Amino acid sequence: MCRFALYLGPPIQLSSLVLDPVNSIIRQSFHSRAQDDPLNGDGFGIAWYVPELSDTPALFRSVTPAWNNTNLLELARVVQSHLILAHVRAATKHGGQSESNCHPFRSGRYAFMHNGDVGGFAQVRRPLLARLSDAAFDLIQGNTDSEHLFALVLDELQRTPGEGVEHLGAVLQRVVAQTVELVALHARGEPCYLNFALTDGREAAACRFTTKAGYDGESLFCHTGRAYVCEHGVCRMLAPVRGRGSVLVSSEPLSDDPGWDPVPRNSLVLVRADGTTRIAPLAA
Amino acid sequence: MCRFALYLGPPIQLSSLVLDPVNSIIRQSFHSRAQDDPLNGDGFGIAWYVPELSDTPALFRSVTPAWNNTNLLELARVVQSHLILAHVRAATKHGGQSESNCHPFRSGRYAFMHNGDVGGFAQVRRPLLARLSDAAFDLIQGNTDSEHLFALVLDELQRTPGEGVEHLGAVLQRVVAQTVELVALHARGEPCYLNFALTDGREAAACRFTTKAGYDGESLFCHTGRAYVCEHGVCRMLAPVRGRGSVLVSSEPLSDDPGWDPVPRNSLVLVRADGTTRIAPLAA
Amino acid sequence: MCRFALYLGPPIQLSSLVLDPVNSIIRQSFHSRAQDDPLNGDGFGIAWYVPELSDTPALFRSVTPAWNNTNLLELARVVQSHLILAHVRAATKHGGQSESNCHPFRSGRYAFMHNGDVGGFAQVRRPLLARLSDAAFDLIQGNTDSEHLFALVLDELQRTPGEGVEHLGAVLQRVVAQTVELVALHARGEPCYLNFALTDGREAAACRFTTKAGYDGESLFCHTGRAYVCEHGVCRMLAPVRGRGSVLVSSEPLSDDPGWDPVPRNSLVLVRADGTTRIAPLAA
Amino acid sequence: MCRFALYLGPPIQLSSLVLDPVNSIIRQSFHSRAQDDPLNGDGFGIAWYVPELSDTPALFRSVTPAWNNTNLLELARVVQSHLILAHVRAATKHGGQSESNCHPFRSGRYAFMHNGDVGGFAQVRRPLLARLSDAAFDLIQGNTDSEHLFALVLDELQRTPGEGVEHLGAVLQRVVAQTVELVALHARGEPCYLNFALTDGREAAACRFTTKAGYDGESLFCHTGRAYVCEHGVCRMLAPVRGRGSVLVSSEPLSDDPGWDPVPRNSLVLVRADGTTRIAPLAA
Repeated sequence: MCRFALYLGPPIQLSSLVLDPVNSIIRQSFHSRAQDDPLNGDGFGIAWYVPELSDTPALFRSVTPAWNNTNLLELARVVQSHLILAHVRAATKHGGQSESNCHPFRSGRYAFMHNGDVGGFAQVRRPLLARLSDAAFDLIQGNTDSEHLFALVLDELQRTPGEGVEHLGAVLQRVVAQTVELVALHARGEPCYLNFALTDGREAAACRFTTKAGYDGESLFCHTGRAYVCEHGVCRMLAPVRGRGSVLVSSEPLSDDPGWDPVPRNSLVLVRADGTTRIAPLAA
Repeated sequence: MCRFALYLGPPIQLSSLVLDPVNSIIRQSFHSRAQDDPLNGDGFGIAWYVPELSDTPALFRSVTPAWNNTNLLELARVVQSHLILAHVRAATKHGGQSESNCHPFRSGRYAFMHNGDVGGFAQVRRPLLARLSDAAFDLIQGNTDSEHLFALVLDELQRTPGEGVEHLGAVLQRVVAQTVELVALHARGEPCYLNFALTDGREAAACRFTTKAGYDGESLFCHTGRAYVCEHGVCRMLAPVRGRGSVLVSSEPLSDDPGWDPVPRNSLVLVRADGTTRIAPLAA
Repeated sequence: MCRFALYLGPPIQLSSLVLDPVNSIIRQSFHSRAQDDPLNGDGFGIAWYVPELSDTPALFRSVTPAWNNTNLLELARVVQSHLILAHVRAATKHGGQSESNCHPFRSGRYAFMHNGDVGGFAQVRRPLLARLSDAAFDLIQGNTDSEHLFALVLDELQRTPGEGVEHLGAVLQRVVAQTVELVALHARGEPCYLNFALTDGREAAACRFTTKAGYDGESLFCHTGRAYVCEHGVCRMLAPVRGRGSVLVSSEPLSDDPGWDPVPRNSLVLVRADGTTRIAPLAA
Repeated sequence: MCRFALYLGPPIQLSSLVLDPVNSIIRQSFHSRAQDDPLNGDGFGIAWYVPELSDTPALFRSVTPAWNNTNLLELARVVQSHLILAHVRAATKHGGQSESNCHPFRSGRYAFMHNGDVGGFAQVRRPLLARLSDAAFDLIQGNTDSEHLFALVLDELQRTPGEGVEHLGAVLQRVVAQTVELVALHARGEPCYLNFALTDGREAAACRFTTKAGYDGESLFCHTGRAYVCEHGVCRMLAPVRGRGSVLVSSEPLSDDPGWDPVPRNSLVLVRADGTTRIAPLAA
């Protein structure tokens, strides 16, 4: 059901997420450690911010497996950014291979990705679409549950009051609540797996959430510190001092470095622009 | 705005449509004769019927240009069928390259393709979706106007009374009428270009239709005869006698053979299983 | 290091190899049972013979994983043949994703596939090329060891005397010997893994071979009987009687059916047109 | 037979070459002005230098047409470089669609692209390969004449004395001479079309060359000035003053700006790091 990683901090090379770590996102595309089925080979996507040129993040997506995409390796080598999202996909059904179905999704300065599944999405899709504004509706190009959730996100970004990371967190909270409500109404009893990451290019929020009883949800980890460095193939987070730092939020630890903290079940992770984080409970 | 061809008659090789004729579908993918912009390089698709194995036609679609697809050349060489649909695509906007957006579209024993454009589709899309049954709605995987029209077709196949080719023709007639009505309601003044081909695996209907004043619509031709033969790269229709024959309905003549009749503006072409045809006016 | 399967017998649907069996070739593309690394997701290829239309087999190859290729599923449903080769690829190095590098390889009526590796191929490549006729040299389009071995096969098909399946077997024997000799001369000590399948459209030969001490070579199995049938997702070989039968030669058993015999280390499998087989030792 | 453009000067956005100009490289992929056949839809490639991170240029290549590649549009928006090569491909024969066959070609800090054709390449290929060092031979991954010419370039970069742009020019001169000699020996009378661009990441050389009598060769233009600016879709070169400037070398003028000078038949263009140029005759 996919893997993702988000980095916010001083600029790093894309390779520090997708290639260099022992459990890099490319590695997770064929040999994920924390999934029953270790394969996430149905496409991938990367979003990164280039604030000196544009508020809109750059997007590179492909339906091919991450592990054999030569262009991804090239970009990993030359792209630097202070804010990067990376996603590898395991399609939940046949026939959905298109770039439009690859995460991250993007609109304006916002980027979003999802790891999980909306139970009974076939029943939920029409009532979900009926709730959307025309603007959010028009942005949907593919047919994944995740892109439909992003449309909800876009509408909630307009409707939900607030600023900065608290705003992003409140939006995720409301999208989770809406999704749970839609499933309850139209696909009662189906489980939801809603691990999200959302950013506005400056701050970020993520969540780990499930309605499945007796299950903590798809795995999600957080790692913070002074700086994230990859040297000679070893990637680690320098121990934190005060002030501006680095944050990684990832479906699985990227490295064997200690300091990867599991995000508790049904929690929000709020990532501030200075690289500090706060965990808060998330109620449906 | 795309090119298509439909063949019904005694089994022929796929190459007789896509490769051998001087103005084959592959040729039309890069050098269409009858369009201002001669390029239809944004993917292609082929559907063909194999009645001894399945009522559901086989489908081969790709986002690559038809002219350099090696697998298409291979299939052209070894596929034989009595009923073949072929389509080359010129995408009307950026970002829509996916197999789901390539024609023909298929459901059960029905196959459908479109050459044209629904004016103001962005305004029409939501009200169109609202008219669909859940079954037709659920089949939509991409975001083209054409696939949405096919969803209307599927609903009209259920609702419209009738049998065989007359049924197919009545369905096209009603889909044209619905589309024109939707545009009038939600995108007043926008033109529609609605050249369709629809088959149930046994008979077929096609139409040439536009609401654009002073314009005959996207080109459409019909060619009938005793048998369609391609020898040494020359393709021609043998002169008709009585009884079972062959029919080609195509956006452009495939060959320099005389006998390609233009389909009049706003007309239906009804193709019976025995290879005979009837042209009927089509009113919106 | 790839997986392959060859079928010879009464016509079957392609799905009986690639989709229906519990350990189908598509299944082996992501969950191979007999490999340390279960993934063969770097492209695939199918060759099948259509004797009523051509001596040259049809070829369908793609760089995408077999498991999510919609067109492969379509062909699996409508292609029937008495002689089918199927291959899923695990690329041995980065950067080689092209259809030209996908097996099977084909020339005229011959089709060939390989599972394994030529040790020290970088050292062997130039002297191997130097041995080729211009005709064989000119056919090489990619840069895999396997396609270079097929070029050796093509030359040996000309040079080696004999007829039918004995000829095919003698050719494989000589290509193995040449390869071992080239490695001994230019990459001494490197191991060879040479599991081949070769057919002329009527009969077939396969081999399991390695120079690696203490290792039986990449796995290879053979299954023969009266007929190979797949019903309701269960595939099995009907018990043999006399006369014409069916043969499967496959890297792994496709089914849990008993009767899959491992091919001994360094052996040839000769498959006659009547579906009977003979195993013979293969010396380098 | 392909189109290319090279830029050297103060950093510009990639979009200034591939998207913004009225006759951009993307435009030339489907509507080249200066070719009988206006289509260059068989893949594309971009190389750009990121000197702060690596001497080795970044490479982005794809077999899809440039005009509908969403990832190319994204990179065009966020990539900036002082030295960019862009190429759109028209394959000279069927079956060669692979990233390995797309230009530019790269090794270490060198990047190279070709527009043209080696006459009788099938006859020339083996003797050309025989001249290569093992190092150059090993780098060939595809089967285009262009990549083989790059292998000659790599060997000449070692063998030819000199420094900087004079060295690059001398190398092109010798590769042209070697190619002409090989064709004379092995494919007498076949014409050569050898428009090249070669850079070491600091300076660049290009050439326009043909052996075809009565023909000036594939078109090539040069444009120099103070700075190349694209604003609101209009791209132009600011009038030169003294000191460091900008250079464009392109198969076709990218803009309707005056100042595009045709490179004379059989000439070298030497582009210095300061953005000044010198034209010199090139003799085979």
